[in-house]
Order: sequence, then structure tokens, then C-alpha cells
Amino acid sequence: MSKPTPLSGFPELLPAQRFVEQAVTDRLRRTFELHGFASLETRAVEPMDQLLRKGETSKEVYVLHRLQEETGGQGTGMGLHFDLTVPFARYVLENAGRLEFPFRRYQIQRAWRGERPQEGRFREFTQADIDVVARDVLPFHFDVEVARVMAEALSALPLPPMRLRVNNRKLIEGFYRGIGAPDPAVVITIVDKLDKLPAEEVARLLVDDGGLDEAQAKQCLALAEIESTDGSFADRVRDLGVRHELLDTGLEELAAVMRGCESVNGDRFQVVASLSLARGLDYYTGTVFEIYMDGFENLKSVGGGGRYDALASDGKTTYPGVGISFGISRTLVPLLQRGLLGSDRSVPSAVLVALADEESRPDSDAIAQRLRARGIATEVAANPQKFGKQIRYAERRGIPFVWFPGAGDGTDQVKDIRSGDQVDADPGTWSPPDEDRTPRIVVTTENEEQQ
Amino acid sequence: MSKPTPLSGFPELLPAQRFVEQAVTDRLRRTFELHGFASLETRAVEPMDQLLRKGETSKEVYVLHRLQEETGGQGTGMGLHFDLTVPFARYVLENAGRLEFPFRRYQIQRAWRGERPQEGRFREFTQADIDVVARDVLPFHFDVEVARVMAEALSALPLPPMRLRVNNRKLIEGFYRGIGAPDPAVVITIVDKLDKLPAEEVARLLVDDGGLDEAQAKQCLALAEIESTDGSFADRVRDLGVRHELLDTGLEELAAVMRGCESVNGDRFQVVASLSLARGLDYYTGTVFEIYMDGFENLKSVGGGGRYDALASDGKTTYPGVGISFGISRTLVPLLQRGLLGSDRSVPSAVLVALADEESRPDSDAIAQRLRARGIATEVAANPQKFGKQIRYAERRGIPFVWFPGAGDGTDQVKDIRSGDQVDADPGTWSPPDEDRTPRIVVTTENEEQQ
Repeated sequence: MSKPTPLSGFPELLPAQRFVEQAVTDRLRRTFELHGFASLETRAVEPMDQLLRKGETSKEVYVLHRLQEETGGQGTGMGLHFDLTVPFARYVLENAGRLEFPFRRYQIQRAWRGERPQEGRFREFTQADIDVVARDVLPFHFDVEVARVMAEALSALPLPPMRLRVNNRKLIEGFYRGIGAPDPAVVITIVDKLDKLPAEEVARLLVDDGGLDEAQAKQCLALAEIESTDGSFADRVRDLGVRHELLDTGLEELAAVMRGCESVNGDRFQVVASLSLARGLDYYTGTVFEIYMDGFENLKSVGGGGRYDALASDGKTTYPGVGISFGISRTLVPLLQRGLLGSDRSVPSAVLVALADEESRPDSDAIAQRLRARGIATEVAANPQKFGKQIRYAERRGIPFVWFPGAGDGTDQVKDIRSGDQVDADPGTWSPPDEDRTPRIVVTTENEEQQ
Repeated sequence: MSKPTPLSGFPELLPAQRFVEQAVTDRLRRTFELHGFASLETRAVEPMDQLLRKGETSKEVYVLHRLQEETGGQGTGMGLHFDLTVPFARYVLENAGRLEFPFRRYQIQRAWRGERPQEGRFREFTQADIDVVARDVLPFHFDVEVARVMAEALSALPLPPMRLRVNNRKLIEGFYRGIGAPDPAVVITIVDKLDKLPAEEVARLLVDDGGLDEAQAKQCLALAEIESTDGSFADRVRDLGVRHELLDTGLEELAAVMRGCESVNGDRFQVVASLSLARGLDYYTGTVFEIYMDGFENLKSVGGGGRYDALASDGKTTYPGVGISFGISRTLVPLLQRGLLGSDRSVPSAVLVALADEESRPDSDAIAQRLRARGIATEVAANPQKFGKQIRYAERRGIPFVWFPGAGDGTDQVKDIRSGDQVDADPGTWSPPDEDRTPRIVVTTENEEQQ
């Protein structure tokens, strides 16, 4: 077999990179669980009729065929899921009788889309979703909760600073109704183009296609310009002089989300009320979210979500939900590939136990086992090479300590191969510094290294 | 949308069951990492030519098609991987220049096979593999290491007792050569049928198809009968009076594996030298392994592996490997579905903070946040119902503690809802007992409960 080459859009990580992904996943999981979110995984496949309900992504679905029915076959009727929301909605309906509502779940899993690969957009990718779903009614405070939990989770990651942009569909729809827009949905779609088109162009579209006059179009653009990291957006909206009951509800809800997230705002993370945000024509009915990573504006949003008053429905019962999805592959893979993020080891081992000769392997194994029993990841040298070579072996893997059985007149010694310091040590009591127990994440943005 | 129904062969877990799977995965990972095995994940898809190299499973591969090319299309040329060995071999070749050898990796990931579902056999399943791979030469002691690591990992799981059966292809091939079998490979295939056919039938096949005389056939069956949990198998083999150099090598290697695993043998786990074991016609060249779970003989083996002198090769360089795969879905799903294994919560939360009225939500949130800051998973009541209802809310989810802000003359109180005990508590200092911090695994085999 000749040397295989990577498949475009299906990124794979080297061991030191995979450690970063694992650490990020562990930290997300930890925060989600501290807030009572239960882990869930769904199968990778869904019936095609489930996957095709969301028209716009239908072209991107991978359909499964059995090999023997490949020629002219109709396929299995199943495809790989392209997000974690469709499977979650299906799971809730299927298991409604066995779940306790409101139901908080997080789901960290892969999804697949057959779209053209580009930086941060992959055909196979991992994302982390949190959602709360209820039966019939989901109180508004859960909108605040999912924002706060995701903000707390993301601000704890060793990634560039991120922003959670928040808006509210009731607010913008109420505003458009308040100015007398004939079809608020059309206005939403047009204003949503502000990240691609210049403002004048959007204003022209609002007049030509949105049925607004120039003063109304100007109002819409004025609304979209409003941003704040606190509750001050509300006064600026009110200063525009538009009145509508739905607008008031939206303003209150957005203000509540901003208040709820006050404590997580900081250098590493900002929650921003962004009144231009609409999340397209999706099924959101209130709060909407998008996540951006500073310095990686080319990736566009690296996550998003919102409130959907009918996440799922079986005709009799409706299950409203609110959630946010974060793109793990979308953020990590570009950082790893550009070398801005990495770890200092390719193995979990903190210690390499050296080997004098093959006959003494059981002794080295016994030392390793005593260290492991105390939670210290340890491996034994593969071959009884010269000690200099065994140290090189550790060095190449980033293992910080090499253990020499009986090196100090019969007493074991351990060498920190970074400093060269070698001291007497007992495998029943010696421990590495806490920061050396597991590989360290190395962030090289702006030449800084941090854990 | 009407209520969806499960897809046969694609098991999904409820939150309390998923907790068990997570706990099992965490414990496996912990042991693997303590021994220096690095985590790896590969993409879910492989080029079809990779997947079809192993003829016998080719029929079971799921082939991916893009939706728009479904009618009469040739597919994407990719299929879902059906194990973790084929992708690992490809990954090693693809990244050989960037890996340090010998390379220890563990991989806990899903795989897919389109076969007919039955208990323990799924179309989508998770397995945990460990392998060590080297360039050119892989010292034998790694055979001992992977056996010991997997034995240690499995014996720490809350599962029924398991057995790791071990044999050695050199031992049996050397034995068959020693008795003068014209084609040892044919003999291996016939003896491998002993788990399906009675011994007399196998003896007849050895004569009719294996080209042996009756005395030789009897010798083969005598070898296959030998089992021991220590090194005594070797004397019993030698008592059969067969001599061959390859047999001696095999005996030494098997004895070394048995010696290396002595310390993990116990009530919960046994390593057994099983001289009938051959692992079919697979590409193993030395040590072979199979894992069985007591009381679940209907599942057949729940894992297996061995030494392959050419895990991967690019024509110039050969990468020998040794590894073992353990079926997580195969063991867990039947136990979960039969109700023999579960957990006592459907949420991670150890504490529910009660809510007097909606206005006091910020106070309850603040208490929850102080508990979380100290690593205690906490949620706040969804609604300010009567306290009795809030206690029921906790009960239904298995949350052991309910926190009442200011209940004791302005001092907070916490109630253990199992005992009914309610005491004054400070969110800055109170902690639940360690065993209540996370959900407990509940094993109901033989009416025992253990963590």
C-alpha cells in the first residue's frame, strides 16, 4: 500500500493536537455538568425524511448505501446527521415519556456535511451543543441560563477571546411592525445581509424589495447599528421613537440576558447586545445568539443558537427549547493548523522509567506501577539503550522526567530533563509538580505561553 | 411529525444510562493514559479501497453518497469505517514522519457495520482499542504490556467478571508442524470450529480435510483442551511429546504474557491461557487475545486482538503492531437494556436550589454559583412551586440534596431528601459526601449495589 493522503474536509489531529481537543472537550463538559446539563449522544444516522425537513441543507446530506445494493439501489433511507439539533428534536419526541422536563442536555459529537471544504468549514466536524427543552411551556429564564452557561464554558477555554452576540427576534420584529413595515420577515432577511453588503445597498433593498420608504429604511439601519456590552442598548432603541408591544417584550428579554451575563463579561469573553443579528430565516422565535472569535472573522460565526418555541412537536404536544451550539472543529482546527495552539507532549506520560538492561524490566515495571497507583502517568523505556538515548526518547515526546532505578548508590533518582536536576526519589512518595502531571496547552498568540 | 420509532441496530441511551457509558469510558481512558497511551481519533470515513482490503467484512460497509448524485451515482468513494484497526493502520502510514515510534495509542470511537442486528451486535457501536505500533521491529514485551493494560482497565469497570483468553499462533502452528500436519493453516481453521461443532466432528474434519491421521487429530484436540490461569499449560503441552522450534518460541511467549498478567488476576478478572483460541484466519502472527464476559456467553467474544507483524506497510517500511479491542456497546448496551446496570440520577446535579418566588431567582442563582465554584454540580428549580413539589422535582431526577435559601431563621438549610435530614449550611463551605458528588453506578447483578 502506498502512502495515503489526507481527505479534504476530514481533518485529523496528531497526538499533541488531539490532547488540546480533549482538554477543550473536558473543560466544556465540566462546566455543562456543573450546571446540571446531562450528557447525551444520539446515533450518527437519521431517516432521510427527518434530515430533509430543513430544506436549505438538504443538498449537503451524506446518504448511506449498503455496498451490495450500490448499483441502482435506493439506499438505506438513512443519512448522516448534519447538526445535533435535528437528532435531539427527534430524540425528545421518541423518548418524551421517559425524560424529565425541563430537560437540560449537552451533546458533544460529530456531524457531517458534504459542502465544499474551506478553513474552519469541514465535511466532518465536532460541535458542542447545550439545550433546554420543556413540555408545552419553557420559562424565559432558561434563555438567560444557556447564554450564561455557554459564556462561562467558553471563557474558560485556552482560545482567543470570543464574543457572544445576542439579539431578540421579538425586538426586531416589533420594531419593524412599529415603523409600519408591510412584511417584517422580508425586512429581517434584508437586514441580515448587512454583513455582506454595504449599508446603502441594504437601504436600497429595503425600499425596493421590503416595501419601506426611505425614512423607514433609515430607522431599520439605525436599529441595526446599535451594539452594547450592557443594558444601554435599550435607551438607544427607545430614542429611535418607535413603539410596539412586541418591541417592549423583546427589549425586556434582551435586557434580562445581558443582566444575567454581566458576571462573565471580561477580557476573555464579551456578551454583546447586537441589534443587527437575525440568524436568517431560521425557526427562532425570541432570543438569538451568535459566537465570534477575535482575529478569526474569516471563520464567520463559530457558533449560534436561540429560542425556538417549537423545537419538536408530535401534533398533540409541543416542546419549546432554547440552546447554543459551539463549533469545536471550526475553532480548534484552524488554530492547531496555524500552530497557534498546541501542547508540549505527544504522550500523557509524565515519567519515563529508564531501563538498565532487558533483565531488569520487571523492576522498572514495578516502579512505573507504583507511580501509576498514585495517579502519575508513566511509561517504561522501550529498549535498554544508553541512558543518553533514553533521555532523548523522553525529550522527543515531551516527557519531563526520567527515572533511574538505583542510580544514587542503590537509591532511585529522578531527573527533570528540562533543568537537568537529578535528585533521589522514592516511587511511593515522589510526585511531579501539578502542572507537569498532564500535557500543557501551549498558546502562541502574541508570543505568550499559558496553561 | 408523528412519534419516531427506534432504528434497529442503532442503540441510543437515556441520560442515566449514558452516564454509565461515560463513566466506563472515563475509567478506560484513565487507565490507558496512566500507561502512556495517547488518545487518537480518526475520521469516520475511509476510501473504499482501504475498507475492501479485508475481504470478509466488505459486504457490511456503509457507502456514502451525496444526495444530489443519488440516482445512478458512483458514490463518494468513501465508506464508514467498520473497525478502528483499518483507520489506525492508514493513519500510521499517513503520519509516519510525524509520529514517535514505538507509538502507543488508544482510540475510543464509533464504528458501523451493516450486518443483521442482534443482542450485542449493532450497526453502530463504540469500541475502545489500544495498540502499540513500531517501525520495523516491535519488541515482544509490548505483547505483555497491552494484555496487562487492558486487563487492568477492564478489571476496574463495574461490569460482570471478564476473562482475557490468550494463545499464541506460533505455539499452535509449531505444534501442528511438530506432529507433521501437511498444512497448519487448514488445521487452524478446522480447530477454530470447536466452539460451534462437537469434538468428534472436528476430529473427523481434521482427518477428512486436514490431511491428518487419527492419532494426529487426537493430538490437536488434546492441545485445544488445555487451559490454565497460570504457567502450568506449558508442562501439559510438553507432556503431549511434540517438539518444534516454533512451538518452543510460542510457549515462551505465552508464558511471558501469563507471568506479566499475574498481578491482575482475581475475582473480577482472569487471564487464561486457552490453547484452542486461534482468531480465525486473521492476520495475527503471534499472541492472540479474546475477551469474554461471564454470564453473557451468548454475546461470544466482547473483544479481541493480537500481534500482527505487518499492521501497515508502504512497501519500504513495515510497521508491526500489537493491540486489543474492547466492545463498549457490545457489553454495556445488553446490560443497560436488561436493567442490570444503571445509575441513580438522570442529571449530574448533586443539589437543587429551591426557589421561594421568581423574584428571588438571582439569590438562588448566586447560591448555585458558589456551590459550582467548589465543584458541586447544582441546578436551580425551574419554577417557584410549593417546596413539596420542588422536592419531588429533585426526587424524580435522583438529585440527593435540596437547598433552601434562608430556611433556618435566615440561614440557608440543605435537606438530604433520602433521609429527610435538614441542616444549616453555608454555600461557601458545605459539601456533599464524596459518593454523592456524581451519579452512582448501580449494578443489580445478584442483588448487589456497588459503586
